[in-house]
This record gives sequence, C-alpha cells and structure tokens, in this order.
Amino acid sequence: MADEPSRLEVVALEGIPEIAPDDDLAALIIGALEVTPGAPPLRDDDVLVVTQKVVSKAEGAIVDLTTIEPRPEVVEFAARWDRDPRQVELVLREAKRVVRMANGLVITETSHGFVCANGGIDASNVGKGSGSVVTRLPVDPDASAARIRAAVRAATGADVPVVISDSFGRPWRFGIVDVAIGVSGLLPLDDLRGTPDHDGRVMKSTVRAVADELASAAELTLGKRAGRPVALVRGAAFTRGEGSIRDVVMPESFDLFR
Amino acid sequence: MADEPSRLEVVALEGIPEIAPDDDLAALIIGALEVTPGAPPLRDDDVLVVTQKVVSKAEGAIVDLTTIEPRPEVVEFAARWDRDPRQVELVLREAKRVVRMANGLVITETSHGFVCANGGIDASNVGKGSGSVVTRLPVDPDASAARIRAAVRAATGADVPVVISDSFGRPWRFGIVDVAIGVSGLLPLDDLRGTPDHDGRVMKSTVRAVADELASAAELTLGKRAGRPVALVRGAAFTRGEGSIRDVVMPESFDLFR
Repeated sequence: MADEPSRLEVVALEGIPEIAPDDDLAALIIGALEVTPGAPPLRDDDVLVVTQKVVSKAEGAIVDLTTIEPRPEVVEFAARWDRDPRQVELVLREAKRVVRMANGLVITETSHGFVCANGGIDASNVGKGSGSVVTRLPVDPDASAARIRAAVRAATGADVPVVISDSFGRPWRFGIVDVAIGVSGLLPLDDLRGTPDHDGRVMKSTVRAVADELASAAELTLGKRAGRPVALVRGAAFTRGEGSIRDVVMPESFDLFR
Repeated sequence: MADEPSRLEVVALEGIPEIAPDDDLAALIIGALEVTPGAPPLRDDDVLVVTQKVVSKAEGAIVDLTTIEPRPEVVEFAARWDRDPRQVELVLREAKRVVRMANGLVITETSHGFVCANGGIDASNVGKGSGSVVTRLPVDPDASAARIRAAVRAATGADVPVVISDSFGRPWRFGIVDVAIGVSGLLPLDDLRGTPDHDGRVMKSTVRAVADELASAAELTLGKRAGRPVALVRGAAFTRGEGSIRDVVMPESFDLFR
C-alpha cells in the first residue's frame, strides 16, 4: 500500500543539453541531478519522469523522412489535410492497427498497444536544422526506464523509480495530457480495491493510474517549449515494485469505453 | 502564454472536516489555507484543486438510494453483476446518453457532456453511517469553482483559480486518473498551436489539457483514503482567464478516437 504524503514537489532538472543519438542519457540525467538545486540527496519517495523525445533521440529511435516513400493513397490524404505524406506513411508502417484516419489525423495502435495520434511519431523539438527528422517511440520503454534507473542507482546508490512519459490525446476531451509509456521500479496501477476508504467502507473499483498522474504532474513543470526533458517528482503516493507499462494497456476485449 | 516555472509544489490542505449538506465549503477551505504550513501567503501561480465529493456534499448533490425504485431490467442487470440496482437506476436516470452497459459497468454521458463510468455517481467516502447515500456530480461545476474562487478572493485578497476534480476511467488504459470537471480563473486548455517550440519550429497541434494535469497532480497528494479533499498547486505552468470546462468537452462529431 502506498504511503499518502501531504506534500509533493516537482523539480525540472537543469542542465540537460540537446540530446543526439548515442548520447549517454542516464549520465546526463545524473549530472543534472547533481547540479539542480534541491534535487540531491535523492530520497525514497522520489520518481524520475523522462519525456519520450530525449529517450528516443538517445536510443536512435529517429527516422529521416527523406528516406520514406509514401504510397499514393497517403499522398492524396496528406495533400488534402496539409500533412507531410512521409510522416503519415511512417505512422502507418509502424502501426499494429489503424484505429481511425480522418480529418488529417491518423490514430493507430502501436506495437506496444498504445492507442494514440500519429503512432507516437513526433516532429517537434527534434533539434535545430533537422526539419526532416522525426522521433518514434522507444522500442521497449520499460527497458529504457530500467536502464536509466540502474545507472542512477550505480552512480548515487539511490534506487529511484523511472517513468518514461509522452503526450497523448484522449477520446471525449480536447487537449493532450502526459501519460506513462514505460516504467521501472513502481507499479503503474495502484490497486486500492478491497481496501477500506476514509469512512471504512470497502472500495470496489479504485485503481489509480499513478504512473500516468506522475507523468502529468511532471508536464506541469516541463511545459512544451522549455527544453527541459526530465523532472524529479518527490513525495507522491505510489507503490514500489517491478511494474510494467503492459499492466496499463487494456486488451480490446476488456475495454467498455470503445 | 503561460510562464514555465521549473518547480511545482502540491500541498494537501489540512483541517477540512467531514462535509455535510449546507456546509460552507469555501469558508472551510479558507480556514484550511490559513492553518496549512506553507500555504499562506497565496501567490499568483497558485491553483486550488477541490475534489468533486466535497463539492457535491456541500451543495446537497446527494441522493438517498432508499428513495430510488429500479426498473425490472435494471434489477436483472444488477443482480447478474453484483451491483446495487438503485444506483444503476439512478445512473440511467441522470444520463443524457448511455454509451455502454456491460460486465456490470454502466458508462454514460452526463448532462455536462462528460463520458464516465456510473455517470459520476459515487458511493465511497460519503460519510460514516450513510450506507445508502451517494453523491452525484455538481449541477454546474464551473459555478461551483467560481463560488469558491470568489469567497477565497473576498477573504484573502488573492484571486486563485479553482479546479473541481473527479476520478475518471479512460478507454484503452486501465486505471483512473483525476481530471477537471469544473474550472474558474484559468484556461483549461493551454493552446500552444502556432507558437515556436524550443527549436523554433512551429508546433501544429499542442493543446495542453492543463486543468486535467492539475487535477492529476493534486490526486498524487490527496490519495483516495486520506480524507483530504483540497490541494493547493503552486508553480504550475497555466494561463489565467475565464475558461470553462465546456472548452474541454468534445462534441461527438469532432471525436476521432470514437
């Protein structure tokens, strides 16, 4: 069961430069932890939230769109909606399933089981002078999180859970929120089913998507324009454990909202 | 444009008692702000997040299920899935539209346009000895937020935006996250479209659902069992303005995820 502290702090780490393929992201995060006022010493209730873009860049999960030849239907769709046909082509190639393709938007299910716009392929903030380069999602975001966690532990002695985050749209509501796409060292779902609530009544179906909420809290400091890709979240209520983002992904047969 | 601070703090307010109908919730929040260490003095980048349950209770948005007579089809459905038939009946009566009814779960569109499980009707944490009493959503959660904001301003001189939050499930992902169901004093969507990102590239479709992220950040301190219904969020990146939760609710025709 998670503790329930009354105070949470989110600190955007300072001093992380533009990331390029083969950069040692974990080492850069460790350096940033050392120089960010208030970050050290690391604590037991700390979580690191790392945005997808820098993980993808460090892992080389980038594609130069000049290498992509779009099929004719895609060229037509893209021209109609003022989209880059090469990006649309890449989204379709990477998709396990196309959920919807209309109004210029392509919603797919990725190999990880995430349902999101453009399959998580993203052109913004890829780096100066890289107009044709896009990032795709890390191949195994849990493993990405685990690598960063292990490196931080080796360098500092602190076993800090790591969440990899990305910005997803949702049905029924405008706007994007940051959610978790990979975790290491915490349970992404905090299951309160069967435990008594404040009044002693047993709660039947409260499963908090705590990793998603950690990602959203981090986004409030990281913003979209600031070039700060990593946040330290301190004091959140979560449960340590060897969780996986696969715990969050809902099989189609379970999903009553569809 | 929102500022982008590098540090965010969430403080669960202390000293808010069990709420009953006709309690002056705003006065209780003002009292809690005064006694919570670190809360005063209020600042320009503060936001108050107030959970739905206490708003509903203070406004008398509660229903005694002993007054509800379920229709026969509901009795059958409830018996099959071990649900309280009176609660299911109430959910259906309050729904503008039934989205799905299966596996014991009823997903409806509320009068506000929210799509959620059980129409936002909630039995947990309603108060000791109130086994048959449930809360429903506030009639006008923006107005609920505006009343709290006005009272805090009158008492403290600080114009602090207010978000009313509730826990919603989502398609495609397990677990609930807290989202905004009412706002006053801020724009629930922070529209970065057409503004340059960190690299100077113009972002095409970044609309941050900042009110939802504020609700999620608050939940990380409020938890579900702690009896702490209000949090002060300090230092988030958001834009002041007279927003409405109606800005977030997506008309069906727009919704490509459906």
